[in-house]
Amino acid sequence: MALPVTRDAITEAYHRIAPHIRHTPLMSLNAQAFALDAAITFKLEYLQHAGSFKARGAFNGLLLSPLSKAGVTAASGGNHGAAVAFAARQLGVTAKIFVPEISSPIKIATIRSFGAEVIVGGARYDDAQAACNAYAEESGAFLIHPFDAPTTLAGQGTVALEWEADTAVLPETVLIACGGGGLIGGTAAWWHNKVKIVGVEPEGSKCLHAALEAGAPVPVEVNSVAGDSLGAKRVGQMAFDIAKDAIDHVALVSDDAIRQAQKILWRDFRIMSEPGGAAALAALLSGAYRPAKGERVGVLLCGGNVDPATVASL
Amino acid sequence: MALPVTRDAITEAYHRIAPHIRHTPLMSLNAQAFALDAAITFKLEYLQHAGSFKARGAFNGLLLSPLSKAGVTAASGGNHGAAVAFAARQLGVTAKIFVPEISSPIKIATIRSFGAEVIVGGARYDDAQAACNAYAEESGAFLIHPFDAPTTLAGQGTVALEWEADTAVLPETVLIACGGGGLIGGTAAWWHNKVKIVGVEPEGSKCLHAALEAGAPVPVEVNSVAGDSLGAKRVGQMAFDIAKDAIDHVALVSDDAIRQAQKILWRDFRIMSEPGGAAALAALLSGAYRPAKGERVGVLLCGGNVDPATVASL
Repeated sequence: MALPVTRDAITEAYHRIAPHIRHTPLMSLNAQAFALDAAITFKLEYLQHAGSFKARGAFNGLLLSPLSKAGVTAASGGNHGAAVAFAARQLGVTAKIFVPEISSPIKIATIRSFGAEVIVGGARYDDAQAACNAYAEESGAFLIHPFDAPTTLAGQGTVALEWEADTAVLPETVLIACGGGGLIGGTAAWWHNKVKIVGVEPEGSKCLHAALEAGAPVPVEVNSVAGDSLGAKRVGQMAFDIAKDAIDHVALVSDDAIRQAQKILWRDFRIMSEPGGAAALAALLSGAYRPAKGERVGVLLCGGNVDPATVASL
Repeated sequence: MALPVTRDAITEAYHRIAPHIRHTPLMSLNAQAFALDAAITFKLEYLQHAGSFKARGAFNGLLLSPLSKAGVTAASGGNHGAAVAFAARQLGVTAKIFVPEISSPIKIATIRSFGAEVIVGGARYDDAQAACNAYAEESGAFLIHPFDAPTTLAGQGTVALEWEADTAVLPETVLIACGGGGLIGGTAAWWHNKVKIVGVEPEGSKCLHAALEAGAPVPVEVNSVAGDSLGAKRVGQMAFDIAKDAIDHVALVSDDAIRQAQKILWRDFRIMSEPGGAAALAALLSGAYRPAKGERVGVLLCGGNVDPATVASL
C-alpha cells in the first residue's frame, strides 16, 4: 500500500522550507565509541531553529497557509509550539500556542520569547490540543497539527532527506525517538525499504509500541521524564500507517537510561539534550538496541530545549 | 621567511591524530543570520574530545613522546590540561596537570575525571607553567607545552586542514580566538596566503595584539571573563612569528560582548560555549569585525568547558 507521505512530498517540502531552516550537521564518532563495535553517526538536529526538528514541519505548514490576520495556532508539549511561534514571527503572523501543565518552564519561556501568546491548561498534551482545536474553529486561526498532518510529516521527513544528501554511504539503521510520530513517520516515509528505522519510546510513554501491538492507535498512560516532548497519549494515525510498514520495531528505554544518555552527551560531547532528544542514544547505551558487528548506526539528536541546570546536576 | 610550522607538518599531524580525535562538523547559517549580509559558517570544535580543540595538539605531542612510566605533564588554564589528561588516559600513561587558581571548577573537575593528578597553584597560567617545568625537570615526565611547541601548533593547525577538507569553497575570512597562540598559529600556518585570519582577543587579555604593536612578545595584564582559556600573559614566540606574517589583524572584544555571544549561542543555537569559545562570535556580533557585503566568514567555536548555570543565567 502507498504510504500517506511520499518522497516527492518530502522533496517539495524541502525546497519550500530550505531558506528558513538550518541544515544541521552530521558528526561521525570514533571507532569503538561507547565501547561498541559499530560506526555511529549523530545528526545534530537539536541545533535547529527553536531547538528541535519541529521547525521543519512548522515552516512547511505555515508556508502553505493563507498567512491571514487570524494568525496561526498550535497545541504542543512545547517544542512544536516553539517552532510554530518562531516560524510565525519570521513570516510576520501572530501565533497562539496551547500547552499542557506538563510543559517545562524553559519551553514556555522559549515560546513567549518568539512573541507568541501562550495558553497553559490541562494535564497533558491532548487537553491542550482540544483547547486549540476549539480556538481554531472559533477564531479562524490556521491550525498546524504537531504530528498528524501530511504537511507536518513531510516537513519532518526532510531530516532524512538532508541526512542522505550529506553522506556518501547511508546508515544501515537509524534510531529515532517517537512522541506523536511526526518525526519517525516522516523519516520512515523517506527511507522506506532503504534504511532500517528503529523507533525509541520511553517505557512510560509508548504510544507507537502499543499501537503496533494492538494493530491500531490506542490510548496509553504517559509518565516519563521525556513526557514534555514524547508524551503523546495516542500515536497519529498517519504516522501509524507509515510505521507499520516502514519501521523495523520500537525499542523501549527507561527514564534512567534517558537521564544517563543526557549525562553522557553533556560529559563527553558538551551537548545539552532534553530528555526526548537523548532517548535515541539511550537505546544504544542501554542495550535496548544492540547493533550488529560493524553496523552503521545513525542516532538522531532531536531536541535541546532543556534547563541546563537539570542536565548539569545529573 | 618560512613559517615555523609547515603545511606538511600539519598534514603529518593530522594522519597521526585522526584515529584519536573527532572530526568536528561545520554548520552554515541562514542568509541574514545576525542581520548581517554575510555567509557565516560555524566550525563546531567545542564538540571535540575533552571539550576543546586542545585534544589535537595534546595527541600530536603524546603520540611523539616515549610514553614512559614517568608519564606526561602539562600546565594549563584548564582546557589543555583536560586534553592532555584525556589523551594520556586513552594512550595508557599517567598525567600530572598544573593549573592556576584562575582555572574554573568545571575544568579542574574535567581534568580529574580523566584520572589525572591536578596541582592547583599560582595566580595565573604562567605560574602553573613554571611549576610544571620544574616538575618535568625533576621527574622526567614528558612535558607538552600548551602552545609554544611545534607539535602543539601543528596539531591545532589540523582544525583548518579539516575545515578545508569539508568545504567546496573556502571561507574568505576566519575569526579565531587567541590565548597563548597555539590555535591561531597553527591555523594561520595552514591558511597562509589563502584565507584572511582575524585573531580575536578580550580587551582585558590581549597578548598577541600587544606583541604585534611592540614587534615582539611582551607581557600583558590578564583580566577577562575568558581568562581561564585566553589568559596567557605573553603570546608564544612561534605563534607570534607565524602571526606577524600570516594573520590580518587582531580584533578586540569586551567581556560584555563575550557574555552576549555566549547568551546568543545558547538562546538561538542550544550551544553551550565557554567565554573563550564565544570570543570569535563576539567579534562578529559586536561589530569588532565587520564583514564586507556577502563575505564568507568562518567562526571557530573552540571550547565548551563551562558551568551551564553561568550561561543559563546570562
